[in-house]
Amino acid sequence: MEKPLLQVALDNFTLSEALESTRVLAPELDVVEIGTLLCLATGAESIQVMRTLYPENIIVADLKIVDAGGELAGMACDNGANWVTVMCNAADATKAKAVEAAAKRGGEMQVELFGNWTFEQAVEWKNIGLKQVIYHQSRDALNSGGSWGPANMETVKKLTDMDFEVSVTGGLTLDVISLFEGIPIKSFIVGRNLRNVADPAAEARAYKAEIATYWP
Amino acid sequence: MEKPLLQVALDNFTLSEALESTRVLAPELDVVEIGTLLCLATGAESIQVMRTLYPENIIVADLKIVDAGGELAGMACDNGANWVTVMCNAADATKAKAVEAAAKRGGEMQVELFGNWTFEQAVEWKNIGLKQVIYHQSRDALNSGGSWGPANMETVKKLTDMDFEVSVTGGLTLDVISLFEGIPIKSFIVGRNLRNVADPAAEARAYKAEIATYWP
Repeated sequence: MEKPLLQVALDNFTLSEALESTRVLAPELDVVEIGTLLCLATGAESIQVMRTLYPENIIVADLKIVDAGGELAGMACDNGANWVTVMCNAADATKAKAVEAAAKRGGEMQVELFGNWTFEQAVEWKNIGLKQVIYHQSRDALNSGGSWGPANMETVKKLTDMDFEVSVTGGLTLDVISLFEGIPIKSFIVGRNLRNVADPAAEARAYKAEIATYWP
Repeated sequence: MEKPLLQVALDNFTLSEALESTRVLAPELDVVEIGTLLCLATGAESIQVMRTLYPENIIVADLKIVDAGGELAGMACDNGANWVTVMCNAADATKAKAVEAAAKRGGEMQVELFGNWTFEQAVEWKNIGLKQVIYHQSRDALNSGGSWGPANMETVKKLTDMDFEVSVTGGLTLDVISLFEGIPIKSFIVGRNLRNVADPAAEARAYKAEIATYWP
């Protein structure tokens, strides 16, 4: 089983705030994600800047595409994104065009699981050529008291059994990592719990060590 | 019955392309919408610029929010948006925070109807304080052969009967306007069919005339 990647989600309002985090975090982890908030606040410039500064990292543009799949995926990849997110409830035509536009530029799409979706639909995504999904706990839902538990793990496991590469996100903390033991997670996506700590680089190393413990 | 507004959707990759359209269109219509593509390509700057240039127009930021409702709605309204879009499949907590953040800044949220949703959920949106919905035909679905018909009108009518202010969008053409006769449409949202014509100002006047014919 491959070792899961560690990914920082940059949900900042400005590029300089995001760079304050990546300056110390990028060398310590694998994937730099330009969060939806940062994308919408700063546009393609953030993608360009992260691509330029961090040639060794995978760059994710969390566009959460719901329409105009070809145009948006193309724009993100043209600016340097490796992976781009598309919402599960986007039309199949949107997903297909996004997959095509990303692939043409050497990129990959990730389906973000939000709201209602079914495993029957997930089969369809595979047929469209989508290989990656992101299992997501809503920030606002977590703020309202939700947490990670066996039901989440079961769903994630079922998705990996379908041969999806599954990344997980939403209020992940260091002690949650071990709950995924035995599941081939693609990437652990951590936001404020990595960025808003006294020593983000040390925190990233702690996450990497925890991952190495459970995926030796 | 109030006369529906006319709204241009700016689905451009650059601010200058968008301005090429608004330079002639903004004085001829009511609402200037910064499309998701333009938001994601240029960030908050497009909102600021449109607010500055067109103080008489309603400015819409089509963010299609699915999470971080308070942060995103706040960001858009702080930069000058009057209306901001939130996806129907966002968590209720996300919608509620967006409504609160927008209202605090004198703005309003619009629920974008995409994928699966139910009228039972729509009742919940009203309880959350959402007054506006956008009935949307996906661009990619339309490209794949869909069109406007009686089933669409019935759904729109049902939403207006629930006292939602309903805007409609997705491949609207001049000859489709009359199909909505008798329904209190909030805003007709037109993109390329307004922008990519020989004389966009004349085209906007033609839409306004058509609206005036059926909502005298």
